[in-house]
Amino acid sequence: MKYVYEFIGAFFLVLTIGMTVLGPNGAGPLAPLAIGSVLAVMVYAGGHVSGGHYNPAVTFAIFLRRKISLLDLGLYWIAQCIAAVAAAYVALYFKGASAESALDLDPVKGLLAEFLFTFALCYVVLNVATSNATKGNSFYGFAIGFIVLAGAYSVGAISGGAFNPAVALGISLMNLSLWSNLWVFFVGNFLGAVLAALVFKAAHPQE
Amino acid sequence: MKYVYEFIGAFFLVLTIGMTVLGPNGAGPLAPLAIGSVLAVMVYAGGHVSGGHYNPAVTFAIFLRRKISLLDLGLYWIAQCIAAVAAAYVALYFKGASAESALDLDPVKGLLAEFLFTFALCYVVLNVATSNATKGNSFYGFAIGFIVLAGAYSVGAISGGAFNPAVALGISLMNLSLWSNLWVFFVGNFLGAVLAALVFKAAHPQE
Amino acid sequence: MKYVYEFIGAFFLVLTIGMTVLGPNGAGPLAPLAIGSVLAVMVYAGGHVSGGHYNPAVTFAIFLRRKISLLDLGLYWIAQCIAAVAAAYVALYFKGASAESALDLDPVKGLLAEFLFTFALCYVVLNVATSNATKGNSFYGFAIGFIVLAGAYSVGAISGGAFNPAVALGISLMNLSLWSNLWVFFVGNFLGAVLAALVFKAAHPQE
Amino acid sequence: MKYVYEFIGAFFLVLTIGMTVLGPNGAGPLAPLAIGSVLAVMVYAGGHVSGGHYNPAVTFAIFLRRKISLLDLGLYWIAQCIAAVAAAYVALYFKGASAESALDLDPVKGLLAEFLFTFALCYVVLNVATSNATKGNSFYGFAIGFIVLAGAYSVGAISGGAFNPAVALGISLMNLSLWSNLWVFFVGNFLGAVLAALVFKAAHPQE
Repeated sequence: MKYVYEFIGAFFLVLTIGMTVLGPNGAGPLAPLAIGSVLAVMVYAGGHVSGGHYNPAVTFAIFLRRKISLLDLGLYWIAQCIAAVAAAYVALYFKGASAESALDLDPVKGLLAEFLFTFALCYVVLNVATSNATKGNSFYGFAIGFIVLAGAYSVGAISGGAFNPAVALGISLMNLSLWSNLWVFFVGNFLGAVLAALVFKAAHPQE
Repeated sequence: MKYVYEFIGAFFLVLTIGMTVLGPNGAGPLAPLAIGSVLAVMVYAGGHVSGGHYNPAVTFAIFLRRKISLLDLGLYWIAQCIAAVAAAYVALYFKGASAESALDLDPVKGLLAEFLFTFALCYVVLNVATSNATKGNSFYGFAIGFIVLAGAYSVGAISGGAFNPAVALGISLMNLSLWSNLWVFFVGNFLGAVLAALVFKAAHPQE
Repeated sequence: MKYVYEFIGAFFLVLTIGMTVLGPNGAGPLAPLAIGSVLAVMVYAGGHVSGGHYNPAVTFAIFLRRKISLLDLGLYWIAQCIAAVAAAYVALYFKGASAESALDLDPVKGLLAEFLFTFALCYVVLNVATSNATKGNSFYGFAIGFIVLAGAYSVGAISGGAFNPAVALGISLMNLSLWSNLWVFFVGNFLGAVLAALVFKAAHPQE
Repeated sequence: MKYVYEFIGAFFLVLTIGMTVLGPNGAGPLAPLAIGSVLAVMVYAGGHVSGGHYNPAVTFAIFLRRKISLLDLGLYWIAQCIAAVAAAYVALYFKGASAESALDLDPVKGLLAEFLFTFALCYVVLNVATSNATKGNSFYGFAIGFIVLAGAYSVGAISGGAFNPAVALGISLMNLSLWSNLWVFFVGNFLGAVLAALVFKAAHPQE
């Protein structure tokens, strides 16, 4: 069932992104509140079953931390990407059309923005949801969801604010981002995950 | 007293919806924040007495999970619906008039929207408030309230964003939704509850 | 020190109200978010010392619940009212002028609005912060703060959204509310507190 | 690693401030939500390693409370200030230009605003994150982050709403505040920290 839970969480994350960012009747400047909230909620709902990643970069950081197997790494990625594609099509069905014009992204700035906030996201996940020192807390979901909220308000206009390769796939399908920029997310997101895993390991040598 | 607590929670939920969505002097784009917050708060205040459902679909999901009796299922539904009617009339008294025009709802999109986010809501309730694996947490209220916030921002313009048959009754009384569309909520909400109960049971075979 | 803590909490509550509601440079439609947040935070910061009331109606509900003495009831009221007056003058100093025109309040609607949401506030406080069944939780502050957020969005335009006699004093000093309407808050707030205490006691006969 | 964690937290705090406050494409009236959220999240992520200060005034209050050494006081200050400078330059790189005009600050009002809300922030930190009576709670991060949210909505237009000498350095570099006003923050922030430590000690004589 853990793959089903990853599918459900990533599906509602990408559906909420599509419904609140695509016009007409999006959530305008409150979209990041809805997006951060749905991620927080899905982490709380699914964390005890699948870990609540919903993000290939987060799954990679957890894999580097040796908390899941190589097989699960692949199966989580597949579940997350299928969910993103399905959610994008549902959002497009509801809205009737994809975005009229995609974000005009500066690749260098976009790469730096995605790298920085994916690092922040993975750093938060590793520290609040996998460390012995914070075990048993009730804040992990909102910490994870609201770093995405902060990142979306900070660099949403620079990179689109995905911080998540599956989300990048979804927003490309909805024409919120250009397919030719997909590499920006993949490179930025996975590099952020690697740095977060290195920092976490250096700070927690016993774990 | 558990029926009184269900009444109080559903009353303030529907009152907040009416006061923040009905013009003039509604909360505009911040209405979902107020609505998600009041639901979260009422879940925290009443959960230890009544379970804090305030929603016939949630009560049905909990019933399928075998956590309440058939008699309570009916009595909870009655308390929730009376509360919704009472709150709608109080909101109408404060505002002086019902909505000028109801949402022009596409039945197929409306049904899908209500089904998806009522599923999400019941899935969250079952996982964060009834599972042994998340017992004793302090996040259940905000998780439940903020999935409604995310749903309202996502599909509020598609279906009205009730995710709750008692709320559907209330918004019909206030002319925010047409009586002829009431079936959309009932069918969508209860199907969402059934699917959530099935998914939860498959993931928690021991419970 | 508990009187000092009550002073500090009520001071920052009324200061935040004044600074975010009074123009120019108020927080506009986000004022309730700031107000609900500062109340939540002050409840968390001061709860272990003074109980974190910051509200004569809440103190009265706690007194009816027999958790504080008659002497403390009076001293808490004095600390809360002095804090409200001090904060109102600080806000007036910062802003340079009081509100140009006070809310034109319908006394019957205002009384009902203040009664309903002060009941909700005291009901939440009693259930989340004084009941054995919810002891040790980490959500009490946000539950208390965010019922005020929901109430402010719901009936802020009807009554001013005080739900607190000390706040009523502060907003009268700032000309956000007329002195001739002060009785509306006092009557509505204390009646709400009494009903909340009665409901709580009926639901918790052992406590 | 604790200095690295202080650097990371202060870096993302100042980066979020720069990206959401500097135009174009800032977060407008929602900037305080993003800023309060990123501070909350960084406190949760880094608290178990460095204490999660990200603020020289908070570090000073913790030092007065005798929870860190004089050497760490200095090293924390250095890490926080380097992070603020780095984040300011990254924000300037993303935005392409500094603010066109700095806040026209009234020194007396600015000093009072910074003093009051830095006192509130340090008072909250000491009570929710260092007191035996609140040990083990899950709310400390949001309490700390959301007093900054409330303060930014309250006095952001009066003083800039730094409540943090490292943030003051960052916003001066971005021309959101004038260098000639830097002393307002330093004096106001450290006086607030001292008063908070005195109040906390008086209320907790055993700790």
